[in-house]
Amino acid sequence: MEKRPCRIAILGAGGLGKAAARFISLKREMRLVAICDQGGYAYSEKGLDGQEIYQIKPQGSVADLFSGGVHCPDSIGEIIALGKSIDGIFVALPNLPNDFIAKIIERFIDAGYSGVFTDALKRTRAMEQMFQLDRGLKEVRSTYITGAGATPGLLTAAAVLAAQSFQQVEEVKIWWGVGVSSWQDYKATIREDIAHLPGYTVETAKALTDQEVEALLDAREGRLEFQEMEHADDLLLERVGVVDSRNKVIVGGIMDTRSSKKPVTTTMTLTGITLSGQKSTHRFVLGDETTMADNVVGPALGYLKRAWWLRDKAIYGVYGSTEFMPMIVR
Amino acid sequence: MEKRPCRIAILGAGGLGKAAARFISLKREMRLVAICDQGGYAYSEKGLDGQEIYQIKPQGSVADLFSGGVHCPDSIGEIIALGKSIDGIFVALPNLPNDFIAKIIERFIDAGYSGVFTDALKRTRAMEQMFQLDRGLKEVRSTYITGAGATPGLLTAAAVLAAQSFQQVEEVKIWWGVGVSSWQDYKATIREDIAHLPGYTVETAKALTDQEVEALLDAREGRLEFQEMEHADDLLLERVGVVDSRNKVIVGGIMDTRSSKKPVTTTMTLTGITLSGQKSTHRFVLGDETTMADNVVGPALGYLKRAWWLRDKAIYGVYGSTEFMPMIVR
Repeated sequence: MEKRPCRIAILGAGGLGKAAARFISLKREMRLVAICDQGGYAYSEKGLDGQEIYQIKPQGSVADLFSGGVHCPDSIGEIIALGKSIDGIFVALPNLPNDFIAKIIERFIDAGYSGVFTDALKRTRAMEQMFQLDRGLKEVRSTYITGAGATPGLLTAAAVLAAQSFQQVEEVKIWWGVGVSSWQDYKATIREDIAHLPGYTVETAKALTDQEVEALLDAREGRLEFQEMEHADDLLLERVGVVDSRNKVIVGGIMDTRSSKKPVTTTMTLTGITLSGQKSTHRFVLGDETTMADNVVGPALGYLKRAWWLRDKAIYGVYGSTEFMPMIVR
Repeated sequence: MEKRPCRIAILGAGGLGKAAARFISLKREMRLVAICDQGGYAYSEKGLDGQEIYQIKPQGSVADLFSGGVHCPDSIGEIIALGKSIDGIFVALPNLPNDFIAKIIERFIDAGYSGVFTDALKRTRAMEQMFQLDRGLKEVRSTYITGAGATPGLLTAAAVLAAQSFQQVEEVKIWWGVGVSSWQDYKATIREDIAHLPGYTVETAKALTDQEVEALLDAREGRLEFQEMEHADDLLLERVGVVDSRNKVIVGGIMDTRSSKKPVTTTMTLTGITLSGQKSTHRFVLGDETTMADNVVGPALGYLKRAWWLRDKAIYGVYGSTEFMPMIVR
């Protein structure tokens, strides 16, 4: 990755995909060569303009971009066809339904695509499907790091570090605050979040019209509070042995859809028992001025570079964002 | 490491080495088979009693242990001779002089020892010498993770995670508190710390008699305060690109040698600039009830298991404790 820029494609051009385009445009080690959404895709061997992509309105499509935009019915298929020109992929697609991302990655595997991937996947059941792809990805010599955003991702990795000081972990609590000035910028993310509210399911949340989402937000003055969300932090921490049961990982938070100011400070709190039997707590606290994009896209690209490092060493397959820390010794 | 316990040797039986013995005795994935100090060594294929080692008085030697203790003039040489029976080594030796640990590891390389190592090395100049051993360790197929304690180690790794959210890191500040009920339990560590005080050097601190150390501590009511210490966190964070200059990493702290209560809360504070130009700060905060041993030995063993994983994948050489996180994309 040091010699020539890593050629990156972004799948999805919602709030996260667009933010990633902007981030990549500032990195000399990465070049954004492709991006797609439901309406089409854009490709340029020399690199797409991340700032231009960032400015596309929520209802717009990357197919309309000045340079390289193409309307088509199957934009994922077009990206797969460009596979030999793409080194790494950031998956910024919706988690809904739970098998949505896994089925798309299967298409890459079936086409024999060999490269690296990260995603910012959140739901536990969606991530379970990703780990099913391990054998297929190994066969095509691809390396995939899942749950590489903020939570799971940055905060979950911090929990693995925090766990090092303890003989036993009693609880990992992640409490996040997100503020966005307009929910329209994060339509898919917010529908995914609504699915966590009492009375909603993945299916009913996905089926909500924009007007219905707005009515729901109006009734709550733009704020959504989530308790005990189904978040794959639990799976990732159980997988590496930080907790012996997923129930010990608790994720919740507050999203304000009408102000970019965070309603609460995002904090990972790990409580454990030390060798001498003391109960204590380590914390990882994110600065309020950092945005969701900073805390999701930054780590996702950092893990993408790590995935490239792993692939270079012939380490293929699916890994969680918690799997390259110091390990838990049992 | 899952199938049979990893057979561990500890080099050094001061406060840290003894604590590590106790930690390992609680782990089914690791078995302490050897430990040494200046007076001799102890070895048992079936495993040494970590609790017994932990209770050796400061002036005692592992050579006096009931089972397996042997007096000898060159205990390191004896451990090297046992090399085929040792999978992993935790280096809990003094950093003083700066080339002390590097010269010992060279002996392992010269003898063709192949295995894994971690250390809790602190000084920048001492760590620089470790990275010189990269080629030699690769030749014997050994994997060494340096700076794998608390700082550098746990807190430095947390800085790598924190850096993911920022486009540019302005400062990493590590401010630690350590409380020990008796300085006699950490004679080497405290001499190393004294070397950081104004008016002392590595050489003069090492030459202090116990009485001189006690007089120094008496004059300060048992408390030592350190500003801008030479700590290898700077080298490790520069190496992975978290900072562009070592000057941006500042390490200091307060050690109370007369109370196990921490005089200040240990905190890593990373200040950076986000994509939108905002200055913000992420923090990693350690619980006051966790001891120096918890925060040094826990990570050192976690990194030892990671080193084993790396070696199993034919990844040999010297790495810093910051090198298996998500990477910094430039």
